[in-house]
This record gives sequence, C-alpha cells and structure tokens, in this order.
Amino acid sequence: MYPLTSKVCSSSNATFVNRLTSHILATRQYASTAAKVATSNKDSSANTNEQNPLVNHGTQESYFDYEGVIENEVLKKRQDKSYRFFNNINRLAKEYPMAHRQSDADKVTVWCSNDYLALSKQPEVMDAMKRAIDKYGAGAGGTRNIAGHNKLTMQLEAELAALHKKEGALVFSSCFVANDAVFSLFGQKIKDMVIFSDELNHASMIIGIKHSNLKKHIFKHNNLEELETMLKQYPKSTPKMIAFESVYSMAGSVADINKICDLAEKYGAMTFLDEVHAVGLYGPHGAGVAEHVDFEAHRKAGIATPSIKDNNGHKLAMDRVDIITGTLGKSFGAVGGYAAANKRIIDFLRSYAPGFIFTTTLPPAVMAAASEAIRFQRGNIELRTAQQKHTTYLKEGLQDLGIPVVPNPSHIVPILIGNADLAKQASDMLMEKHKIYVQAINFPTVARGTERLRVTPTPGHTDDLSDIMLDAMEDVFTELQLPRVNDWEAQGGFLGVGDPNFIKEPNLWTERQLEYTNKDLNPNVKHPVIQQLEVSSGIKE
Amino acid sequence: MYPLTSKVCSSSNATFVNRLTSHILATRQYASTAAKVATSNKDSSANTNEQNPLVNHGTQESYFDYEGVIENEVLKKRQDKSYRFFNNINRLAKEYPMAHRQSDADKVTVWCSNDYLALSKQPEVMDAMKRAIDKYGAGAGGTRNIAGHNKLTMQLEAELAALHKKEGALVFSSCFVANDAVFSLFGQKIKDMVIFSDELNHASMIIGIKHSNLKKHIFKHNNLEELETMLKQYPKSTPKMIAFESVYSMAGSVADINKICDLAEKYGAMTFLDEVHAVGLYGPHGAGVAEHVDFEAHRKAGIATPSIKDNNGHKLAMDRVDIITGTLGKSFGAVGGYAAANKRIIDFLRSYAPGFIFTTTLPPAVMAAASEAIRFQRGNIELRTAQQKHTTYLKEGLQDLGIPVVPNPSHIVPILIGNADLAKQASDMLMEKHKIYVQAINFPTVARGTERLRVTPTPGHTDDLSDIMLDAMEDVFTELQLPRVNDWEAQGGFLGVGDPNFIKEPNLWTERQLEYTNKDLNPNVKHPVIQQLEVSSGIKE
Repeated sequence: MYPLTSKVCSSSNATFVNRLTSHILATRQYASTAAKVATSNKDSSANTNEQNPLVNHGTQESYFDYEGVIENEVLKKRQDKSYRFFNNINRLAKEYPMAHRQSDADKVTVWCSNDYLALSKQPEVMDAMKRAIDKYGAGAGGTRNIAGHNKLTMQLEAELAALHKKEGALVFSSCFVANDAVFSLFGQKIKDMVIFSDELNHASMIIGIKHSNLKKHIFKHNNLEELETMLKQYPKSTPKMIAFESVYSMAGSVADINKICDLAEKYGAMTFLDEVHAVGLYGPHGAGVAEHVDFEAHRKAGIATPSIKDNNGHKLAMDRVDIITGTLGKSFGAVGGYAAANKRIIDFLRSYAPGFIFTTTLPPAVMAAASEAIRFQRGNIELRTAQQKHTTYLKEGLQDLGIPVVPNPSHIVPILIGNADLAKQASDMLMEKHKIYVQAINFPTVARGTERLRVTPTPGHTDDLSDIMLDAMEDVFTELQLPRVNDWEAQGGFLGVGDPNFIKEPNLWTERQLEYTNKDLNPNVKHPVIQQLEVSSGIKE
Repeated sequence: MYPLTSKVCSSSNATFVNRLTSHILATRQYASTAAKVATSNKDSSANTNEQNPLVNHGTQESYFDYEGVIENEVLKKRQDKSYRFFNNINRLAKEYPMAHRQSDADKVTVWCSNDYLALSKQPEVMDAMKRAIDKYGAGAGGTRNIAGHNKLTMQLEAELAALHKKEGALVFSSCFVANDAVFSLFGQKIKDMVIFSDELNHASMIIGIKHSNLKKHIFKHNNLEELETMLKQYPKSTPKMIAFESVYSMAGSVADINKICDLAEKYGAMTFLDEVHAVGLYGPHGAGVAEHVDFEAHRKAGIATPSIKDNNGHKLAMDRVDIITGTLGKSFGAVGGYAAANKRIIDFLRSYAPGFIFTTTLPPAVMAAASEAIRFQRGNIELRTAQQKHTTYLKEGLQDLGIPVVPNPSHIVPILIGNADLAKQASDMLMEKHKIYVQAINFPTVARGTERLRVTPTPGHTDDLSDIMLDAMEDVFTELQLPRVNDWEAQGGFLGVGDPNFIKEPNLWTERQLEYTNKDLNPNVKHPVIQQLEVSSGIKE
C-alpha cells in the first residue's frame, strides 16, 4: 500500500479510498458541507445552548457563553486543519513576479496570484491610477447617488459595456457583491423564479441564490442533460435563471455556453454567466469565454459592432447571455466587480440593488486603473497567448514528472494533493525551502479531500521560472511522499487524474489562435471613443 | 392654507397632514416599505405571473416576459419620483470643496459628500497612496488567503485596532459587506440568537439581520424603554445581540451607548455598534461616539493604553461594546469597511465570513491611504472642532432664515423638504442656479414623506462659503415655496421641526471640548509604533 495513505486517512474526514473512487469533480457545496462538518464534530451549531455547559435555561441567572461558543468554532477549524494562516505577501511592482515577505529582503516568487496578466504592475495602469489621485484625491467620498458618481466611473462602465458588447454595465464593490446583489434582487422582484445552478458555482453565487429565497435546482457540474431534465419540469411561462461560470476557478473546467443558451431559449430561461476567471484571458479582446467561442467573428469586428451575427445570421454567444458578471480585481489588476447586460437590466440593478445603492463608490483612481487595464489588454492578445503558452509549458512539465494536475482546458493548474495538512506542508516547504509561493487551497474554497496547490502562470512566468518551479515541485513531492499520477491511477483515478476513462477536452486556445499577434487585431480595439452611456446615470425617457 | 400643501399632497402617497402630525422620527423600514409600495401600485411582485399578460400558465407555449417585468419595476420608481439620476460630480483634490461636472470648466461647490474631513484630498494621504502604487502596483491580486494578504493590510488593521482600543480589526470590501457578514455569520453559528435592532439602522444592518435568519425585534428609534421590555422577555441564557448606530446618518440622531451597554450587561446581550458616520468626527482621536463619551479619559491616555478605566474603575464605553464597525470611505477618505473587536471575534469572522473569505483584498494603496488618514486625523483634533464649528454656523444661519433642519446633536444638517419631487427640484435649482451640489435624499435612503437635503459641512466649508450657501437656500425655499419651520409648526411639527414639545439634546461636542487644539492631545497619538497583530494573519497557539 502506498506509504502515505494511512497518514492521509488519519487526518481527513473523508477516507482516502472514498476520494480515490470518486470519478466526478467533487462539489463544493459551501453551505451544506459546513453544516455536515459541524454535525460530525458533535458541536452542532443548530442549538448552541444545548452544547453550552455555562448555560442553564431553567434559571434566568446564567449568561450565554459567547466567548466559549466563538472559541469553539475557531477550534473546529484547527482540528480539521482548515484553519488558515495568511501569508504576508507583498508583490513588488518593479520585480514582478517577485514579492517580499515581512522584511523587504526576504523575497519569493509568486505563483498563485489572480493578477493573471500582471496588469496591476503595468506602468500605464499604475500611472493612470496616480494621475486620478492627483486630480481627484484618494476616495470617492460618497455613494453613487450622493456625491460618488463621476466621469471615471461612467467611463469604466462604458468600457465594460463595450468589452462585453452589452448596452450597459454597473460597477459594484466586488464581484462577490455583484453576484449576491443580482440574485438577491431577482428573488425580491420575481418571487416565482426558479434558479438552476451548477454545483461548482462560486460561493458568491451560492450565497446570492440563498439570499434570493428562490426555489433552486443544483445540477451536476457541467451536466447539461441533468440541467435539461430539471428545466423541463416547469412550464415555459415559469421564470427561470440558469446560473453558471465560464471558467471554474479551482478546477479550471469550462462551461459550454452555447449549449446552455440553447436550453435557456428552449425552456424560456434567463442566463447568468460569471466570467470572473475568464475576463482578460479568453476571446481576442479578453472579454471572456463567451467571446472566445466566436473568436474569429469578434477578432474581425473588434469592438465596434455591438450586436454582430455569425455566418448563419445567429446571435453570438456573448449576445445570447443575459447577464455577465466579472471582476476588476484579477486580470484587470485593480479591485471591484461588475455586471454587464441590456440597459433595462442595468437600470433595474442600479435602481434597486441594496448592495449597489448603500455603499461608497470605489475610488476614482481604481476606476481609472481598471479602465486603463481593460484598454491595454484589449489590444494585447500577446499577453493572453503568452499566458496560455506558459501554462502549457508548466502543465507538460508536471505531466513529465508524474505530478497530478486536475485536467482542464483552461489556464488553471490545480496540482492535486487531496489532504489539508499535506497541502499546507507542501505550500510551506515551497515557500521556506524554495522561495516559491503557492497557496494551499482548502475548505471552504474547495471540498474537503480535494485540497490542492493552485498554480497560475502569467505572461511573466517564463520557461526559466517554470523550470525552477518544476524542480521545486519534484523535490516537495519526493520529500513529502505526495501521491503522484500513478498512485491515483492505482486507485481508479480521482478528479480526472489517473482516470483511464477521462476524456480530456481540447484547450480553449487552439494552436491557430495562439499564433495571433497584436497586429492581427482590429485597430478599433486600441483607442476607440467609448461613449459614456446614459444608463450609468439613469435612463432619460 | 399654505399654498404648497395641495401640490405636495398630489405628488405624494403619504398625505401632507399625516406627515405633519407625525411626531416621531419616521422609520426607514427598507424592506417592508418597499413591499407596501409595490402593493399600492397594484403591481405586487409577490406573484409576477398574475400581473404579466404575456404569460399563460395553462399552456406551455408562452415565455415569461422578463423585459416587461423589469421595465415595470423601473417604471414604478419613475411614477413615485424615487427614480434616481446620478449627478456627475468630480471632486477636485486641489480645489476642494469644488468639483467639476461633465466638463472641467463647469464647477460646483460640494456640500453633501461624506468625505467629512476632506482627508481624501489631504496631500499626506494621497502621497501614501501613490507611494504604495509605486512599490506594490494597482491591485492586491488575490483574496486574503491567496496572495492578497500583505504588510499594508496588517498595518491598517493594527491602526484600526489601536484606534478603537480593541485586540483586533478586520478589513472588508465595504462596511456594507462588514455589517452583512457579521450578522450573517452569527446567524449561521448561533441559531437561537435574538437580534434587537434600532428601527433607524442602516440598510446594511437590516439586510445582514435578514440574512442571519435570526429572530429579531425592532425597537423604536433610541427608545431604550422599549428595548428593555423586549430584552426582558428572554432568559439571560438566550444569546442576544443589540444592534445600533452611534450617529444615524440621515437624521443625525445619536444613541446612548452606555445605557445600551447597561441593558446588554443586565440581560446578557452582545452589543454591535456601527460607527460609520462617527469615526473621524467624535472622540479626541476620532474613534467615534464610543470614544467621545469618555472624552477626557481618552484624551489624556492617548492611544497607549488598550483598556483604561474611569475614575470609579469601570470600563469605558468603547471597551464595553463588543463589536464596532466602521468605514474607510467617509472620514477616512478611501474605501472599505471594518470590524473591531476582541481577537477571538476577529478570528471567528476571519475564519468563517464568506463576504471576507471569497473576495479580492482591497488594493495595497487603499490600505496605505486609509492608514495614513487614520494617523493624520488621530492627532488633528482641530479638524474635528472646525467641522463642528462650521456645522453650528450653518445650522444657526438656517434657523435664522426659518429653514427647517431636523434637530440633532451631531454634524448632520438634514434640511426637511418632505416630498420627493420638491426635494429633487430644490437640489436641481441649487446646482443649476447657484452652483451648489446638495443631493436630494429620497426613498429608500429615507422613508417616503421625509425627503430632505442632507448637508455635510467639512473643515473646508468656511463661514464665507456658508453665507453663500445660506443665500442660495433662502432663494430656493422662496422660489419653490418650500415649507418653513412655521409651516411645520402650524401643523403640529414633524421630525422635531416646529414641534413645541421637542426637547433638543445638547451637542455632542461641548464648548470646552471645542476649545482643544492639537497640542492638547497626548503625543503618543501622532507617531506611535503600532504592532502588527497576529490576529490579522491567524492566531498562533
């Protein structure tokens, strides 16, 4: 038996065998998994008083032991190894992809940032941010309605609308807030709506759907047959929303947007697509996977034509999706989130969503940085192709070493560890011994038993750096005796690793697409005049 | 009869008389008021299908008319005059308190920003932000757990903990997110907790409480007798949380923190205090009203002593409150929110709150700006006294003109209009004719029928600017024939305006306190060494 197995079993709730025999991508059901753990820890939070020895319901003399309950909740995380120590990582603008730790001299190479294109370090982006500070100060000073609406915000929303070829866009504090706000609002206003949600959807969508109080169905990850079975239970007249992502961040799997839109049209559903981990990285202009699936049409059109059709006169995928959400905090190098949609939907969100209304606007400087980043990346397909090529180089190197990568057609490199304690040990060893920072990903970000090291190459992670990384990873896998592909294979495979029946999808970026250079883009993507849309301030009519 | 009365009646759901005879501060029940309006508009969203002519449940042929429903929801806001047009306001760092509108040449004076101390324009703050960009780039590049935790964030959290004399603090995307996250998490982990919430609490708290799914009691604004009646229904062993604000943003009323803490101790409740509109403005060091009520003790101690006692050996108010939330986006001139509490509570939030875990960290530059703003204001009591003196000058000037200000002991100047349409007309006229920007505040930010112009003087709003403002306001009140104090008085008074029985509270800032200068502060507040607390990264034990 593989020497590490017993160690793994002893420190994990799920047994090693169970994990190995599971063939599907494990679900990350944030809420329900948490509930289960609480129960299994014999410390159910369902009725805290019963577990709380300081409390006596009979008399009115004893007080509730808040400290004890809170301490106990944190203790649970220590016990199941999901307690998190945050690493002090100070990413250096001028030495990218390096960061210093507590002291300026203690430097490490960052391999797990979501600043996928390193645009936060791009001088044009930094300069735009500093210029905005010089002119408009540090903060916005108010909500969008009260002194916090300004040209730079309108400009950014116009850039976002243009990028996604939608009538409007609306910026939120974060995409967590955007996702929460959109579902919550639909729940408030269309109370008989039914939500159909992919089981791997991000926590922000799960929570938004929970807050919507709408009836929901969770379909197996990317399982469109199951989705259709669920959809057809309802009359077409029942309002429905299909909620999904384009690139699932922790596994790197990708949704089939057109097939989901086909189902939406067939059964009368709206579509909600989270492109958080795809914007900047897919499509000729970085609008995401919905742009990527119609690569040539968009490449030729640039961003001039809001509603182009394919050769058969059909709408393109990006046009078919009703609501696209995205982030300004990953590929676009700043912070914040947004929704892009037709102007009625944007006005609806603008007018009603509490998460939009009751909060201070992001600083003008953040808006300026994000706008500049979007413009910069839109005309720089070479950033995207470099990022993809570096990803492929790393994935192939890992494969050669027999190090298990959860297979996927995207830019995510999820190195499977399968145990919270070992994942942290691996991460710590990479940092301390090899000066490489790759965060261990544990619950609740991924399901227990599927812990991983999630590596994210960027255009700056050249093959030289990858070679260093590969040597380090080989050392860590050897030193900690972590399971390799053949170990997973011996147990029937897990998450597509070592699974003989797993059919790997082709990469989203084809060989042909990877050959494009910036010169192959339509010139209109570089410095177009983007009109500030009235929807951002309210529609006059 | 007052000539405008009929006009007012015709454009408002609530009748003028009803509003005038109401003696209490009107409640802003966000959710329930919205529901009522929907019903009164005959377009209840409870079952959209019934109102939707395109839908036929009998056949499966018709599709739900999403566009129609969404358009109709926005139409309702136009009909009841709560539809919002955002003003394009670009506040100029070097010409504060001026802003330009769409064109750089079209300048107005801003009188309604929440940048209460104008710290977003303070050169030290702007410089700190730019230095952080130069060194660390535009964005954080990840969540706190994954590549987004850094020295500047830890430094800010240490500054916040020191400011509030708590063991720890945690930064969120916004205080909307912080408030939502705290209540949601307590609801998830202590399911039999009961919430006691002031009826004027901010939307973020109302929504957080809703998301907690906890049993709740809403007590009349600042009515501690009613609060006690509610508290005493439960055994002491029942977990409880009293949720309140220090300064209520739209009315300017102030809570009695010590009396609420007395009740909390008597009945075994936790206390949650939102100091969003008080930090920077109250207390010798700008820690808020909880600091202000023990002004002398804190002034003498500076920020060195974490847990000082009063002369009788009792804990001070700031120490008594369990959880304080605040914002980085108003007085502190940046963006973001935070919670400050003991280290167990902070670790609990850090370890479990989805709104904290699943979102990109604010940019290092935002953390740097906020830290600098907090340090700067902490040693500058003169900013606070100037702000208060300007407020008093303006309030007295308005009083002399018979212009109705909702009376309060704080820095908020709520000029009562009482009608959504007229409030917008007044705001537009101030802007177009007088080049003064004061946003009209309408539903859902305040209850319908209590619409107001909310004026917020800053240290830069000198008496000269106030005189111009007073002339302009007089002109607008005359031109639009808006009701003055004697008109409200003739109808029995409203919200304390023209109410002979209303007893005005003394200002929070006493004459003596207003005489202090920066030299009267303990030197330790200016450049102390603030240790980065381990709680921010996880507690080692």
